[in-house]
Amino acid sequence: MGSSTVETGSQRTKKALSTLQDLVGDDLKKVNQVIIDNMQSDVPLIPQLAGHIVSSGGKRIRPLLLLIAARLCGYEGQRHIPLAACVEFIHTATLLHDDVVDESDLRRGKATANAVFGNEASVLVGDFLFSRSFQLMVKDGSLKVLKILSDASAVIAEGEVMQLMTSNDTETTEAAYLRVIESKTAKLFEAACQIGPVVAERPQSEEDALARFGMALGVIFQLTDDVLDYSASQAELGKTVGDDFREGKITLPIILAFQRGNDEERAFWVRTLESLEQTEGDLEHAIELMTRHNAFEDTIRKAREYGDVARDALSIFADGAERRALIDLVDFCIERTF
Amino acid sequence: MGSSTVETGSQRTKKALSTLQDLVGDDLKKVNQVIIDNMQSDVPLIPQLAGHIVSSGGKRIRPLLLLIAARLCGYEGQRHIPLAACVEFIHTATLLHDDVVDESDLRRGKATANAVFGNEASVLVGDFLFSRSFQLMVKDGSLKVLKILSDASAVIAEGEVMQLMTSNDTETTEAAYLRVIESKTAKLFEAACQIGPVVAERPQSEEDALARFGMALGVIFQLTDDVLDYSASQAELGKTVGDDFREGKITLPIILAFQRGNDEERAFWVRTLESLEQTEGDLEHAIELMTRHNAFEDTIRKAREYGDVARDALSIFADGAERRALIDLVDFCIERTF
Repeated sequence: MGSSTVETGSQRTKKALSTLQDLVGDDLKKVNQVIIDNMQSDVPLIPQLAGHIVSSGGKRIRPLLLLIAARLCGYEGQRHIPLAACVEFIHTATLLHDDVVDESDLRRGKATANAVFGNEASVLVGDFLFSRSFQLMVKDGSLKVLKILSDASAVIAEGEVMQLMTSNDTETTEAAYLRVIESKTAKLFEAACQIGPVVAERPQSEEDALARFGMALGVIFQLTDDVLDYSASQAELGKTVGDDFREGKITLPIILAFQRGNDEERAFWVRTLESLEQTEGDLEHAIELMTRHNAFEDTIRKAREYGDVARDALSIFADGAERRALIDLVDFCIERTF
Repeated sequence: MGSSTVETGSQRTKKALSTLQDLVGDDLKKVNQVIIDNMQSDVPLIPQLAGHIVSSGGKRIRPLLLLIAARLCGYEGQRHIPLAACVEFIHTATLLHDDVVDESDLRRGKATANAVFGNEASVLVGDFLFSRSFQLMVKDGSLKVLKILSDASAVIAEGEVMQLMTSNDTETTEAAYLRVIESKTAKLFEAACQIGPVVAERPQSEEDALARFGMALGVIFQLTDDVLDYSASQAELGKTVGDDFREGKITLPIILAFQRGNDEERAFWVRTLESLEQTEGDLEHAIELMTRHNAFEDTIRKAREYGDVARDALSIFADGAERRALIDLVDFCIERTF
């Protein structure tokens, strides 16, 4: 995980995302306009706070997936534009509520909304964006889309609560961890991808395939995010290294290192992650232990397994620019970690 | 506002509510079952925390209004049952998020959910119930109902943010205050009442009338709540007296007393409510000032004006048990303050 190779991984991810953006660039511009139009309110703090997070350089990966999935299914209408904004609003609402949850100081290199505006405003503006998202869906008028995104929202909330209950618990199993990230992260990727074939009115098989693709990609995204949290390149992205460690967040690299560690190492993990008693050098020692036990390597290996699932899911679609862009995205998401 | 007369008002409110409950008692039992069934989750903390607030002796006034409004419109189906649960879930979600906002210690006489389970869980379980509510609406399948409740949710969130921005501001106008309570409180009363004629498939005129009724009743409910916060009977209801004062919450009694006060009094309000510098005897002095300036009296007078609007709105409906119960509810809501 040297700094220069990680830099390359980051550049590759950017390249993959820019390929996506080239394919649906005009659509994405329209999505951004819908986002800006719909975060307006007579209450000035709402666009101010929403703008802080919506415009803070997010990758727009969820709306991009929805747009590409619609195009992959041959969709030529315009319904995917506001629906892509819905997905981004739900994501933004969970970020705002997560800020309260995580007490994190930095997100995307800017101070989090709650550090600037207070917990209360973050919760309420999150609620506003969430409601706005459902208003946009109602305007679209598809009960099927409403079902997909209300189901996804409930699962995301369940995943966040599960995460809360397993936080600071070093006995968390890999299975429990995977269930958390499938719920809190991957479910919205799944929903975004599934809405593509839904608006294109394609058969159930294509919905299932793109849902499976989205779920796998979401898991990859979170697994690699959890590895990157300990990577030196984080600082270059304006993020601090080891945020997860400081919060006692139990991610797969930690789970693997804990399971493979001796008694002394387990005592270290319990002290630093359960009791949150951390002193200088602990983060470096944690990274050293995870490296020694191949915990980063095996987390990425797990991501590769999901990569196979994601690519396989796309096999029912004909070759073309959209399918290639999605496959590249899987590869580059995995590669960004090294 | 002596203790014995307030007791009578409280008893009257109970009587009005029990008349409502007699009229739709079987329906309400079914609603409670739908609520319990739908707050279940594989994640144990969710039913645990949701149960804490859902079962904590709330009056279920919003679902009751929806049930009665449907019956008033001659509805004989079953769709109003799950939709009444939706309204209660949205209300419960806002309470959970309000707990974070208000840092209040007591609600309905029990420790608030966030005091017991932490801010983070309150936010996330609120999100879950909110999502669940939309899942139930999708199952019902009416885009019209989805529009009413997603619009209401957005307005509620705006109202809460408005309240946040005017909190601790003694210069808040009566108009600004009314806009806040119309949004954060009365909008859901309006939506609950409107859904009655919608499921009964009644003409727009009945929807408009019941929406107007609900909005007025909601404003009455909040105005009298704001008076009751300073009433000695609060302690009997298991609530503490002067919560709003301690938080620096600007309600109509305060606004009126501030406007009618001299320089010395205004300095008192600024110190206690803006700077939140409060010492022993301040609450008593505040109550004395509001009493001297007829602030409680005139707040109740304002509630009576809304009472006229509410009663007038019902004039298009034929006389009957449901209409009488709703009119009684208006009267008793106002009378509970003295």
